Order: sequence, then structure tokens, then C-alpha cells
Amino acid sequence: MPDSQIQHVSTIISAKWICPVRPHNITLEDHSIIIDQDRIIDIIETKKVSSLYQTTQHFQLHHHIVTPGLINAHTHAAMNLFRGFADDQPLHTWLNESIWPLEKKWVTPDFVYDGTLIACAEMLKSGVTTFNEMYFYPEAASRAIKQSGMRANIGLFVMDYPSNYASDGEDYLMKGLEARDGWRDEALITSSLAPHAPYSVSDKTLDHVLTYANQLNLTIHMHVHETEDEINESLKQYQIRPIERLHRLGVLSPQFMAVHSVYLNDQDLTTFSKESVSVIHCPTSNLKLGSGIADIETLQKHSINVCLGTDGSASNNKQDILHDMQLASLLAKGITKNPATLNAKTSLEMVTINGAKALILQYEEGLLTSMDIQACKDIALRWQLKLKQNV
Amino acid sequence: MPDSQIQHVSTIISAKWICPVRPHNITLEDHSIIIDQDRIIDIIETKKVSSLYQTTQHFQLHHHIVTPGLINAHTHAAMNLFRGFADDQPLHTWLNESIWPLEKKWVTPDFVYDGTLIACAEMLKSGVTTFNEMYFYPEAASRAIKQSGMRANIGLFVMDYPSNYASDGEDYLMKGLEARDGWRDEALITSSLAPHAPYSVSDKTLDHVLTYANQLNLTIHMHVHETEDEINESLKQYQIRPIERLHRLGVLSPQFMAVHSVYLNDQDLTTFSKESVSVIHCPTSNLKLGSGIADIETLQKHSINVCLGTDGSASNNKQDILHDMQLASLLAKGITKNPATLNAKTSLEMVTINGAKALILQYEEGLLTSMDIQACKDIALRWQLKLKQNV
Repeated sequence: MPDSQIQHVSTIISAKWICPVRPHNITLEDHSIIIDQDRIIDIIETKKVSSLYQTTQHFQLHHHIVTPGLINAHTHAAMNLFRGFADDQPLHTWLNESIWPLEKKWVTPDFVYDGTLIACAEMLKSGVTTFNEMYFYPEAASRAIKQSGMRANIGLFVMDYPSNYASDGEDYLMKGLEARDGWRDEALITSSLAPHAPYSVSDKTLDHVLTYANQLNLTIHMHVHETEDEINESLKQYQIRPIERLHRLGVLSPQFMAVHSVYLNDQDLTTFSKESVSVIHCPTSNLKLGSGIADIETLQKHSINVCLGTDGSASNNKQDILHDMQLASLLAKGITKNPATLNAKTSLEMVTINGAKALILQYEEGLLTSMDIQACKDIALRWQLKLKQNV
Repeated sequence: MPDSQIQHVSTIISAKWICPVRPHNITLEDHSIIIDQDRIIDIIETKKVSSLYQTTQHFQLHHHIVTPGLINAHTHAAMNLFRGFADDQPLHTWLNESIWPLEKKWVTPDFVYDGTLIACAEMLKSGVTTFNEMYFYPEAASRAIKQSGMRANIGLFVMDYPSNYASDGEDYLMKGLEARDGWRDEALITSSLAPHAPYSVSDKTLDHVLTYANQLNLTIHMHVHETEDEINESLKQYQIRPIERLHRLGVLSPQFMAVHSVYLNDQDLTTFSKESVSVIHCPTSNLKLGSGIADIETLQKHSINVCLGTDGSASNNKQDILHDMQLASLLAKGITKNPATLNAKTSLEMVTINGAKALILQYEEGLLTSMDIQACKDIALRWQLKLKQNV
């Protein structure tokens, strides 16, 4: 074949195995991914590559499996800098004596920028190319994310309690929307409204959140039913469970991401299923903080879209989604007493196509990225020393 | 001080932190371990070392924590070569269609030697220096263990069913005792009788096991109450629970190690406590095979000695005891809904002093070791290729 018929492309990745997730249950052996101008244009048998394509960037991965970039569907990236500061503590002590005082003392835009950058490095190491973020100072987070080259959905954090960052519901909302203006032209960054949790956000604030979400066509990212206490408090204050309250306020929809969802009764399951809510399962965090174990098999039986999140490093203590994939699978097998539950295929779907569905990403938008891991390690070390000396 | 007062020693390890486990709750900062002729002779502040000791082998570990060598209290090391061959399968399929046919086809002394050697490498990588082993062809395992430089307690495997290795209870016992003669002069290798499980060993065989254990002063290492089915079967066949059966046969004692113990009722707990039995908790294996979740907090409330094991790689899929330490701690927090449960100190004790107590090791017998990890990786790869081509 004359050379003129051989197309020059940006990148070729030849791998022992490629697992494209869709179509279902396919693993391609000795295949190559052909990429041109940041898009996959072909996936073919490796032996056919040389007669069709050429490139100056050819990765030969003889012992690797290549999958779509993984999606970490819930984290507070900057909290990486609090890793290991509050282990083995009862929830009340964890929040009141560790996390909140640490946040009051340390959380600034600089802290969020550095912490997010390090979390990006750690996520990339476990194959994550996209994450769903929720924390203070989203503008600072957005700068780190841009630098990392990752794709992210940044939550515009909202609650009714004051912090270093903002004073009340309206202040959080205004600051979040202003920050969003800074990344609206970024192709790889999208936005959510991120009301913290039913117990920290009033009906009035939730109503404003809903208005902005509808007007700007944004998803909503919220902690929901993380503990039994949260449900009991809501029953006392509102006489209904938090999910019922959110439902009545009109907040639940396919654009709603319910983080944790450890305690769901039949009514909650029916509501989530009917409203096509996505659930973000954070198994490590739920164990570490003594919240409990979410019943993923039951969620799946109700056809609820389930994704996986690491949560922040104060409650994990890693940003390694592969660890949470394994834990989710092991826990599901253990509590159902059926080793066939939540198999490898389903675990991989949770961190790929299910995450994309929750974040309303076009699934074709994969992402290849790299960054300077060593530089991030140095930043992490600097912060650890600073914090340890002052705690 | 004149040089003549400075003692020359084999090795000095200077570390940022040393966690000696005993005394309780002590972490030494900037201290050094002084080792002479394979024994720790002193632990002192690093700044005082140069005036007291000199060595030609000085490890400077500026960012490390040094602990006693960790103990993996239950594994089938050679099953490393079956890693990933039987994931996500119901227990019946796992055993009948995967593990048993694989064992029938592949398990030979060569298989056990290679598999054990690779498992040793993997265990050393996670800080394990001692392990409690149970599998076919213990003579082959002992050769690999000697080569690794590790300390191990080798189980003399016994059951009433035939395998490639032996034909019936007596044959297993005779072959095990003969194999033991080959390592009786090895300082780092001890032996157990290892009857497989209550459902695979008859009263008669257990009686012989007990006789040999008493005569030779050996520990007994056995799977017990791994699943609910096992208990129900025993109730049908013997009209009593397996632990009660073992108790009546006189098998339970401080020399007895009960692996798994997922399902213990009040009577079982009282029996184990009274007889000072050690329990080997294998959290990953219990989840992966859908057995359930052992309640470690309740065991500890009954003052039962609890150690940790990875189990074999067919049911884990790793030999990384650090992973099981973390999982044990997370699970205990999750099921008790108390994040203070099974804290870091207790987790570390489970894989150090508790393991030593179960194995009846003098705890002072720490061990420093190293081996050629790369050579083991090559062996693993060779076996993987061989098995994948023939399954």
C-alpha cells in the first residue's frame, strides 16, 4: 500500500487489553487506540495499525489493560492536607474538635489551591481523569484543576453556617456564581450547585439553589442520608425524612447527585428511582466515620444509577478510586453473602459510565492527561510540616 | 570518650519513628535500634548513638516508622498462583468449578515451591516477616520459606478427602510428620497440625491430630465457623455446632487457632474465652467469598486474642497484610457505627503481639530479612502464562 494512504495521527496506544465498557462485556486483546486531535478516531487490531496509521507518539503497553478515564464522583480535594489528622475519633469529636477547628485555622485560597493540586496528582495515579468536587474557595480549586489538566465538575458550595469563606446561604451562592464566571470558558470544567446537606441548608436556601440550578442548567451535588441521626433530626424538625423534604421542595431530578445514601427505606428508594436521582456511594468514608454500609445491590435492583466517590482524605484517607472500587465490591458480597454480587464489570461501570451519567458528561469525552507528580509531593510535604508544627 | 568504649555492632537502624508495640502506646521519635548478632541489644536516642556504638551497616530512615515485623496469621501461600482465576463466583462454583479442578490439574511440589516463594516476596513487601501457613506439600513450602529468610509456622495439612498430595487422614498425617523432620533443625520454622475444617475432618482424624499435637507440643491451625452453612450442616450431622464438637473432642486450648470465626453465638464466645483460643480474622476473604463479617469488637470484649490473616490469594487477592489491617479497622467502625472502634494501635497489635501469642512465639524474636523481589516476579509471570494458556 502506498504511504500516501497511511494517515498521520497524534497518538497511538497499543495495549495488551482494552476494556471499552461499552459495548457491554467486551475486552479487546492486542488492540490499539488511534487518537487524533484529542479524539479517539479508531480502535483496531494492533497488527493492522502500521498499514493504516502512523504517529510520532506511540505508547506500547504490553502488560496493561486500558480503560476509559475513571470518575471519582465525590470528593473534597483540598482536604488531602488533613489526611491522618483525625483518625479513630467518634463523629462528634472528629467534626467539633478536629475538622472544624482545622478548617477555621487553615482553610484559605492558598490551602485549597495546594490541596487540590496534590489530590489531582493522587487521583491521576489511580487512573481518575474526572472528579466531582465540593469545598470552600472553588476559584482556587479551579486554578489547580486547570493546572492538572483533569476534567472536573466543581460544586458551588452552599450552607447556612458561616465559614472562613462565606457568611450565609446567599453569600455562598453569590461567591460560587462569581467563581464560576472564571471557568465558564474552560472546556474541561463544569459546575454544580453544592448545598452541603439537608441539616445544614434551610428550605429557603434550597429554593434559591433550585432556582439557579434550573436557570443555569446545573446539576445539584449534596450529601444525603449519611447517618441515622440526620434522619431522626429531620423527623423532629420537619416531621418528614430528608429525602421526602427534598422531594417536596422539587430538588430531586436526574440532575441530582445524592452522596452517601446509606439509609434508604422503601419510600426513599421509590422516590430516587422515580426521579432518576444518581447515588454516589462512598464506602470507605461510610466505614471510617461509622456511618454504616449502603446496600448497593438494593439500589441497583431499583435501577438507580450508582457511582463511586472517595470522599475527602480526612474521611478515607486516600484519593485512590481503585481502592474504593474493590471495597464496594467486597462489601456488597459480604452483606448479601453472595460472592457474585457487584462483579468486576459492574465496579468498572460505576467509576466510568455511571459517573458520566450522573455528571451529565457525554461519555465519548474521555481524557488523557499527565502532570508532575513529584512537584505535588513536595507541596504536600511542605503543608504537612506546617500543620504538624501548629496543631 | 576514647574509641575503645565504643562498641562495634552488626547493624544500626535510625528512624524518624519507632513503634515498639510494647510498652503500650509508645512511639519513639528520632531513635535508633542497635542490633548485634541478629538480636536487638538497645534502643536509644539517635543523637546518642555515635558515642556508644559503631557499625558498617547503618540504615538512616528519615521518613519511616519502624515496627516489629508483621505476622500474617493465616494463608495458603502457594495459592498466589491462582490469584484472579475465580473472582465474582458463588462459593459452590468457586470451589467445584474453579479451585478444586485447578488444584487437581496444577498442584505439585514445584507449584507449591514457586507459589510460596512469590507469596513470601509479596508478604515481605507489606512488612510481614512471619506467617502461618496451611497447604499441600509442606516440604516444598518449607524450601521456599528457607530461601526467603522469613519465619513461618507450617501447618501439616490434614483432611479426610483425597487430593494430589495424599489419600486420607492417616496419609496426610504421615506425610506431614515426615515433612516436618526436614525442617526440625531450622531456627525460623515451627509446625502446627492443620486439620482443614470441622466438615472435612472426622472425629477419628481429629483424635489423631490431638494425640500428635499433645505428644509433639504443636499448635493446631483450623478453619472454624467460616459460613452459616457449615454450622447448619454440623447441627444436622452431629446435633451440635462445630465449636461445641471440637470442644467435646478436647481440641480447643490456648494452642488452638480458629481461622475465620465469622459466626459465633454466646456459647461459642464463652467457650473460646474459657479455653483461651486465638481467632484469626480474615476480613477480605470473608467478604470476597460472601461469608459475612466477623464481629471483632465482641471477640475483644470477651478477651479473645484476635490476629489477622490475608488467607490465600484465591480469596483475597493479595498477600498485603496492611490492606487487611485497614479493612479490619474500617469494617469494625462500620458495623459498630463507632469510628473509635479498632483504632490504629489495636490494628497494629493484631498483626504483631497478638499473632505472636497465637503462634506461641517469643515476642522478642523479631526478624529482619530481605530477598530478591524481582526474581519472584519473574517466577509469577511464568506461572501466570502457563496457567492462562491451559485453563
